[in-house]
Amino acid sequence: MSSKVSRSGGFLASSMVLSTAETPDADAFLEKRSACSSYRVEHVPLTTLPDWHIDDRLQHASGRFFAVEGLSVRTDFGPNPRWSQPIIVQPEIGILGILVKRINGVHHFLMQAKMEPGNSSLVQYAATVQATPSNYQRVHGGRPTPYLEYFQEHAGRRILFDQLLSEHASWYLHKRNRNMIVEIPEDEDVAVADEFAWLTLGQLRNQLAQGNRVNMNARTVLSGISYAGEDAPDFSADIRDPFQRQTVESHDAGRSDADVMAAMTWLIDQKAKFSLDVRRISLRDMGEWVCDEDSIRHRDGRYFQIIGLSVAATSREVDTWWQPMLEPTPGNVVALICQRRAGVLHFLVQAMVQPGLTDRLELAATVQLTPGSYRGPEEVPPLAEYLDAPESWIRHQTVQSEDGGRFSRADTTHVVVEVPEGHTVDAPENYRWMTLGLLNRLIQSGYYVNVEARSLLACLL
Amino acid sequence: MSSKVSRSGGFLASSMVLSTAETPDADAFLEKRSACSSYRVEHVPLTTLPDWHIDDRLQHASGRFFAVEGLSVRTDFGPNPRWSQPIIVQPEIGILGILVKRINGVHHFLMQAKMEPGNSSLVQYAATVQATPSNYQRVHGGRPTPYLEYFQEHAGRRILFDQLLSEHASWYLHKRNRNMIVEIPEDEDVAVADEFAWLTLGQLRNQLAQGNRVNMNARTVLSGISYAGEDAPDFSADIRDPFQRQTVESHDAGRSDADVMAAMTWLIDQKAKFSLDVRRISLRDMGEWVCDEDSIRHRDGRYFQIIGLSVAATSREVDTWWQPMLEPTPGNVVALICQRRAGVLHFLVQAMVQPGLTDRLELAATVQLTPGSYRGPEEVPPLAEYLDAPESWIRHQTVQSEDGGRFSRADTTHVVVEVPEGHTVDAPENYRWMTLGLLNRLIQSGYYVNVEARSLLACLL
Repeated sequence: MSSKVSRSGGFLASSMVLSTAETPDADAFLEKRSACSSYRVEHVPLTTLPDWHIDDRLQHASGRFFAVEGLSVRTDFGPNPRWSQPIIVQPEIGILGILVKRINGVHHFLMQAKMEPGNSSLVQYAATVQATPSNYQRVHGGRPTPYLEYFQEHAGRRILFDQLLSEHASWYLHKRNRNMIVEIPEDEDVAVADEFAWLTLGQLRNQLAQGNRVNMNARTVLSGISYAGEDAPDFSADIRDPFQRQTVESHDAGRSDADVMAAMTWLIDQKAKFSLDVRRISLRDMGEWVCDEDSIRHRDGRYFQIIGLSVAATSREVDTWWQPMLEPTPGNVVALICQRRAGVLHFLVQAMVQPGLTDRLELAATVQLTPGSYRGPEEVPPLAEYLDAPESWIRHQTVQSEDGGRFSRADTTHVVVEVPEGHTVDAPENYRWMTLGLLNRLIQSGYYVNVEARSLLACLL
Repeated sequence: MSSKVSRSGGFLASSMVLSTAETPDADAFLEKRSACSSYRVEHVPLTTLPDWHIDDRLQHASGRFFAVEGLSVRTDFGPNPRWSQPIIVQPEIGILGILVKRINGVHHFLMQAKMEPGNSSLVQYAATVQATPSNYQRVHGGRPTPYLEYFQEHAGRRILFDQLLSEHASWYLHKRNRNMIVEIPEDEDVAVADEFAWLTLGQLRNQLAQGNRVNMNARTVLSGISYAGEDAPDFSADIRDPFQRQTVESHDAGRSDADVMAAMTWLIDQKAKFSLDVRRISLRDMGEWVCDEDSIRHRDGRYFQIIGLSVAATSREVDTWWQPMLEPTPGNVVALICQRRAGVLHFLVQAMVQPGLTDRLELAATVQLTPGSYRGPEEVPPLAEYLDAPESWIRHQTVQSEDGGRFSRADTTHVVVEVPEGHTVDAPENYRWMTLGLLNRLIQSGYYVNVEARSLLACLL
């Protein structure tokens, strides 16, 4: 499996290219698309959403799209042994697919400037295709999904990356999407629609570094990219930033079959240590939650709320719609601590139980902070003190939005902290140092790295 | 991952050895152990089981072990779009572990002659360790689990196989066990307790060929064994049976990274095609099921029933206990069709949705027949007509028991049919031909091959 992406090669080269004859100015293109999208997003009471009904659960009259249900959770991971919460149930498997083409030898990515009503910056770069079966089977009418055919089953697909990966498991129950990168031949013509642009990986890296310009679904697909085996030393000489050089080198390290086996055995050890039992219940049976005409919310305003949104836009498949959205309490942070160990950059990840995960736990970033969840300082997770690290240790800090199709104003601060080589990080037993090469192989193997961590890893490309 | 087992080598050699100085006569040993176990197994009404309570669910007063709950299922796979059924819920991850040691250069497997109350032949060969956390943490008192320490987390473990694999997904919800093969150094002494014996793989093959002598949990662990890379051609000359020679050669075929990638992409295509939505409900809310003092059963006697069992035995951790058991309607069959294709033996497997699977569908045998489930001939699954194949096509036919710790008198006929090279098998789109090498790599990758198919694959070692 190690060769899933690297056999294609060319990703690292593309990451060094900041403009080509085929690519627009990435900033300007996004601004232009924003300017020519008109939209209006308003909060409305849940009970006024046409075709949505709330009873034991909140669902659409068609039975499609998604539902919000209650979930009763029991676990011995973390400070709270049991709780109930609303959760989004959407058993459909969506496609998140990026089309890649070599143009003059350089990988270009076909990105869509896409409006999503929940995003703080409404229009962001999205994958070529970002669609659930409800979308592309056009349950709600609407326009056909462009480029879908490149990702659907057919003999000629040249697949560089293809894996079912988990989504936000604190907000979604067992949700997974199919993350794909598909390459089309150099000599195949593709018409580029108005909202689409070819960008190099270097341009995408720049957009990621600015924050709130590459959407969640694009970030998770990009996290499947590996630089392993791409003659990194040759390129490394060209990379002036020493931290970037180290990340590229970390892609080549610790990714042997034996490394993957050892990591998987460690993860199974963690799965055997922690328990998780979830049960779908009625929205009416959630002890601490208020469920009324306006919204579904925690009685103390903690965690998140389910609200109604009215959206009018010209750049989506349909022009006006209403839908429920999950709006978290502000202040979410995801942070990775890294350190040179034996000359190679390693990242400290943790085995973390989340109620909506398909297989109990996955690897998460060093710190995954959801301020609305803690009743006091004793509930703040381990190593959160590194968020106050000296400025000189900070290697990355941006605000990125979560899926703006389901989550409203869900901005997560992304942080990477490099601690000095001599520094000792005192981490609990369910934490482990891994190279980017190993993390990438685990992403390529399925449900092993959670979406919050993958989003941050995409920022390290 | 391909090297997970094969790097150790020695499995094929062990499969050729039918006796050594260290091994007992495998038939005689089992019979002796049966003779010196005294036991009594009786059906009792559910409501008379001490410490078990039935209400919305059937559960133990401790909250441990397992529970029987209702499950509401919706799927577009198969003839029935929705139904409800009882299902066993046991979120614990058990350990199924076999200890292996080279003795005079030959792999020996430490097998336990174990009594399980549900088995038709009560005492069978089991893995070295077969224990849930409830067992080995001794929730019910009882004796410590022998050899457990070899499988628990420690630095020196030499792991030949380690994977979480699914259990019966028509009867269990999201159940998985940790399947392990751990090798101890040749010079390390291991005391062999009374119920235990070292057996070669050749002896285990003989026991498997007789039927009802190697239990379900041992079979799933054994299905992780690969003969790939073991210089099969050298051994092949020694293998007189041409079908056995072909199975050994099939272990070496079609198992490249590219083959695994293509199979996984095909499986994701199938997962995207079929839907599954399950919900845990009260036992009282299952429309077609009767739930009274005696048992939980379908109103027409179909599928299976949940009964009470009283057990008294001297060869288990505790001497007397009571527990619920699932008793299927008789007549279950699992069958693989195989065929030489381009000179290599391939097996026809199907992507099959089952309500309790962790990730919607897994690969199943060509035919998985549960006679109690069909209301008429139109519901009998595709290719079932091959169960009436000419005698000369039958390569394997045995009766094997399912996990006798949860399932009562659950005997499944295991069949392998080899169709002639010219013969065309007309299979639906969710069926695919695979080599044993590819199936083995998928087993080693996680939730890809269901337990019914794995059980049959163990019989092909």
